[in-house]
Amino acid sequence: MEKTRQLKTLIDCAMKRAKCDLVVRNARIFNVFTGEIEQGEIAVKEGVIVGIGTGYAGEREYDGAGMIFLPGLLDAHIHVESSMLTPEEFARLAVAHGTSGIIADPHELVNVCGVEGAEYLKKAFDRLQCGGVCPLDVFMQLPSCVPATPFETSGASLDARATREEIVREEFFGLGEMMNYPAVIAGEEETIAKLAAAEEAGKIADGHAPAVTGDALNAYLLGGIATDHESLTAEEMREKVARGMYVQIRCGSSANNLALCGEVVTAENARRFLLCSDDKHAHDLLQRGHLDDALRRLVRSGVPARFAIPAATLNVAECYGLKRRGAIAPGYIADMVGVNDLSDFSVRAVFKRGVLVAENGKALFSAQEKYLPAAVRNTVRVKDVSPEDFRIPVRSGRARAMQVAAYGLVTEEVIVSVRGGEDIDLSGTDLNKLAVIERHFASGNMGLGLVKGYGFRGGAIGISVAHDSHNLVVLGDDNAAMARAAQLLKETGGGMALVGAEGEETYPLDVAGLMSSLPAEEVAARTAHISAAARRMGVKEGYDPFMTLAFLALPVIPHLKLTDKGLFDGDKFAFTKVEV
Amino acid sequence: MEKTRQLKTLIDCAMKRAKCDLVVRNARIFNVFTGEIEQGEIAVKEGVIVGIGTGYAGEREYDGAGMIFLPGLLDAHIHVESSMLTPEEFARLAVAHGTSGIIADPHELVNVCGVEGAEYLKKAFDRLQCGGVCPLDVFMQLPSCVPATPFETSGASLDARATREEIVREEFFGLGEMMNYPAVIAGEEETIAKLAAAEEAGKIADGHAPAVTGDALNAYLLGGIATDHESLTAEEMREKVARGMYVQIRCGSSANNLALCGEVVTAENARRFLLCSDDKHAHDLLQRGHLDDALRRLVRSGVPARFAIPAATLNVAECYGLKRRGAIAPGYIADMVGVNDLSDFSVRAVFKRGVLVAENGKALFSAQEKYLPAAVRNTVRVKDVSPEDFRIPVRSGRARAMQVAAYGLVTEEVIVSVRGGEDIDLSGTDLNKLAVIERHFASGNMGLGLVKGYGFRGGAIGISVAHDSHNLVVLGDDNAAMARAAQLLKETGGGMALVGAEGEETYPLDVAGLMSSLPAEEVAARTAHISAAARRMGVKEGYDPFMTLAFLALPVIPHLKLTDKGLFDGDKFAFTKVEV
Repeated sequence: MEKTRQLKTLIDCAMKRAKCDLVVRNARIFNVFTGEIEQGEIAVKEGVIVGIGTGYAGEREYDGAGMIFLPGLLDAHIHVESSMLTPEEFARLAVAHGTSGIIADPHELVNVCGVEGAEYLKKAFDRLQCGGVCPLDVFMQLPSCVPATPFETSGASLDARATREEIVREEFFGLGEMMNYPAVIAGEEETIAKLAAAEEAGKIADGHAPAVTGDALNAYLLGGIATDHESLTAEEMREKVARGMYVQIRCGSSANNLALCGEVVTAENARRFLLCSDDKHAHDLLQRGHLDDALRRLVRSGVPARFAIPAATLNVAECYGLKRRGAIAPGYIADMVGVNDLSDFSVRAVFKRGVLVAENGKALFSAQEKYLPAAVRNTVRVKDVSPEDFRIPVRSGRARAMQVAAYGLVTEEVIVSVRGGEDIDLSGTDLNKLAVIERHFASGNMGLGLVKGYGFRGGAIGISVAHDSHNLVVLGDDNAAMARAAQLLKETGGGMALVGAEGEETYPLDVAGLMSSLPAEEVAARTAHISAAARRMGVKEGYDPFMTLAFLALPVIPHLKLTDKGLFDGDKFAFTKVEV
Repeated sequence: MEKTRQLKTLIDCAMKRAKCDLVVRNARIFNVFTGEIEQGEIAVKEGVIVGIGTGYAGEREYDGAGMIFLPGLLDAHIHVESSMLTPEEFARLAVAHGTSGIIADPHELVNVCGVEGAEYLKKAFDRLQCGGVCPLDVFMQLPSCVPATPFETSGASLDARATREEIVREEFFGLGEMMNYPAVIAGEEETIAKLAAAEEAGKIADGHAPAVTGDALNAYLLGGIATDHESLTAEEMREKVARGMYVQIRCGSSANNLALCGEVVTAENARRFLLCSDDKHAHDLLQRGHLDDALRRLVRSGVPARFAIPAATLNVAECYGLKRRGAIAPGYIADMVGVNDLSDFSVRAVFKRGVLVAENGKALFSAQEKYLPAAVRNTVRVKDVSPEDFRIPVRSGRARAMQVAAYGLVTEEVIVSVRGGEDIDLSGTDLNKLAVIERHFASGNMGLGLVKGYGFRGGAIGISVAHDSHNLVVLGDDNAAMARAAQLLKETGGGMALVGAEGEETYPLDVAGLMSSLPAEEVAARTAHISAAARRMGVKEGYDPFMTLAFLALPVIPHLKLTDKGLFDGDKFAFTKVEV
């Protein structure tokens, strides 16, 4: 009955027998179905577009002169945690830049907090209000790789059985990116069973398959995986599209493959491309924007706007089955973004379900009270450490060290000559010690290793963001400073810490040790401040002092990495020792 | 567990760790995602495509040399009843022409038999077998307009309440074409409630909106209607696409709008077009084909093959949410059609779930035993009529007659001078009598009217197909012959009947009075034979002797029509009288 009443109301408005809630006048409208720009009024009732035409009467009117209206932008794949912002702050920035919906994969939160981490994220977004509507829709994926590997200690574990139980829940929209592509291709039952569970639940599964092509790509696709954002070459993108994958063009803060798209996207295949952020830092959101920036850069890379815009609207809606989203047309949810033009994509007005939620780069809402349930607070549980725990005994005089590629995440294993017996003597070397300290269960697990060429001198730095299990990572050249840095991270409940001659500095990531409850501007400023302090202690150009550390504990990236369980040889896929 | 096992098996085949069921070698493949033609082997296991590549081993091998493989063709909208064939016979012809799936709207059957008519159609298709698979997928719509109008007696009625109950059933894929567009646009509650029920059930609703544009189109779309196949002009097609409708290009036996498409379909909007048949007669299926013929004609009309083929494959799958259909790619159901080229589209091999189901124009299956449940048999229930019942008393000397437009369905009201008192004297005129006799409940309802210019002389002809309520329609110039024709239709359980100086001829439509249980070739031959006999009795060029009659009882087509309740003025939307 209620639906019948609603439809009748909408129809009455379309036929001008009743007054609309909102009429956007003098608008130019980008039509995703035709690739053309239309002129007309957009009429809205009860959050739904009831017509594109002329002569509507509205309770509210909005002058759209000088703008081109696009459908609300949809991010096909993002880890909100990478912004280090709470959902409230993330939404404030993203919505100001025209974002109406995100497919969120809470991989980091769930590795720390389990399913409650995802529930937190969903609920925090859903609680947001602006003029009676929730300003950002979040479609929450259930992470597929928790833990990411068996070679580290994560805060939670989601095996196939748990996945089967969780994936059917309404809270979960689909299965998050299946990073364990070798297991899929090998046909490992535990991994396949997760994909089978998603398929049986009628839910989509996202992919992550760098350089997976040929037979392996066919096999990976048979797992029911719909998308991929990891293409490294134009040829790889073309093959993935041809095999039926939706290719997510990634425009993240660190990684992007925009430059490939100019030569790959054609009129015939354009419908199979989506835009996504994957990882987007707070300062990047503040300074460059979100999908508006991605559109700007995609168009500059040579993709015509008429194919670029659907990649952030209609194509995303089609791929993920988001009903009545991704277009400005009768019956569609009235999510709309007014931009200045189709090359700069500067966002001037953002409507969500017909409510103005942002104007001229500012969101018209804020979360007065942040949602911070117990599950995501006080998550850093570390056994006390002493300076002696950081000793690395090497009696042979030769040791393995990680040399990190500048501007990259890959490490090389290098063999270095070292002095010392009970503990390595770092003086006069370009070595640092690295420690990964288990922080979920206060088990006392701790891995120790060496890093060459990082340049850091005179103390220690540490961070509680460490992909994908998010243990504590501490780097330094002084055992006492390293122990102190670990202690500071424990006291702040996670974050970044620096211990040096100038004193101590901390920056708290009090939400699961991953995100900060501070305002975005403060997050960006304080991250910059503590990073600059670390830079002054010698960290070389090409390394982000803290964020580079966050990837040294990720054993799936070659070649030598460190987890809380010890030094890991990514080539042999086995643990190894510092001493040679 | 079973799904996990299946996925693992498929992956093993993709990686060549296990043998496939079928390998199609030397194939060229049309890729719907890129619009390009690829070369490669297609490997199939358990009915699913596991890879496009080289070097596969298969239990069976098929040499695809000289063919281009397309995904199995999908008809976006068809009334199977219009073929006058049983599902078994329809499938035999359609599959031979490359059809893998149809969205069927059993509007005629349900108007006669109620929901059991739809159940019959679904079950009859689903029972078909060929090499262990069902050779044709049918996605069954629940008709939305039963009865089509309140001005006639149909065999069943599906009001909003019944629609709400039925639409949630698994048997029903969506809501059939909403022909009552004036009611939608007017916001009539009973009609809107049907659309609301479909939306709440999460099911698609098809449309039918000739010349509906502007505000009315916006309003119609708000009913949640996804498609339309009635566009009369290129401009109308363009507007419907721009407003978010999927435009079904109709290639039926009587109506088609192919000629418009050459100038309308562009690279930007091509994804929003679908191919459909709507109504397809047996002789047309036999002589010209099905969607293969539609593709051939669409390409000739100027639409490039790379945009035409998706309209009969991927686009249909996307519009209707048909999972893993519409493409030749890993994970997709192995429905494939080998054609000789992309201009002639001559079908040489048809695979359904990896099983060869037709070759060189012949289906490799037949239904030994037709499924004919009681619900669709003996449906013609008529109260006995006598010659006196066909008398039309006119004392004023002036009467209304229908003049049918040649090659069309529209009638004009003409006023004619007539002789006679108790009954019109037809001698020396170019008038025929027309009777519509209620045949569902033997109520004795009978409408009488006059037809001018049909040319028929010397007896009577009649048919039990009469849109949309399918009462008996009898035309003639002799009361006794007309009564006899009605009697013959009653005795055959529906069909076509002819009574003249040469004798009598009948052709039975023993399934619901709409379809014949005879083989397709015999249906075409006997229809042609009885039509030729009627033609010899004077029916003029421009009229199909029987099928034109089938539309004279359809009150929604202007201007003067006849139902079992009487003569109907389509302009005043009210009953009128023969006598002026």
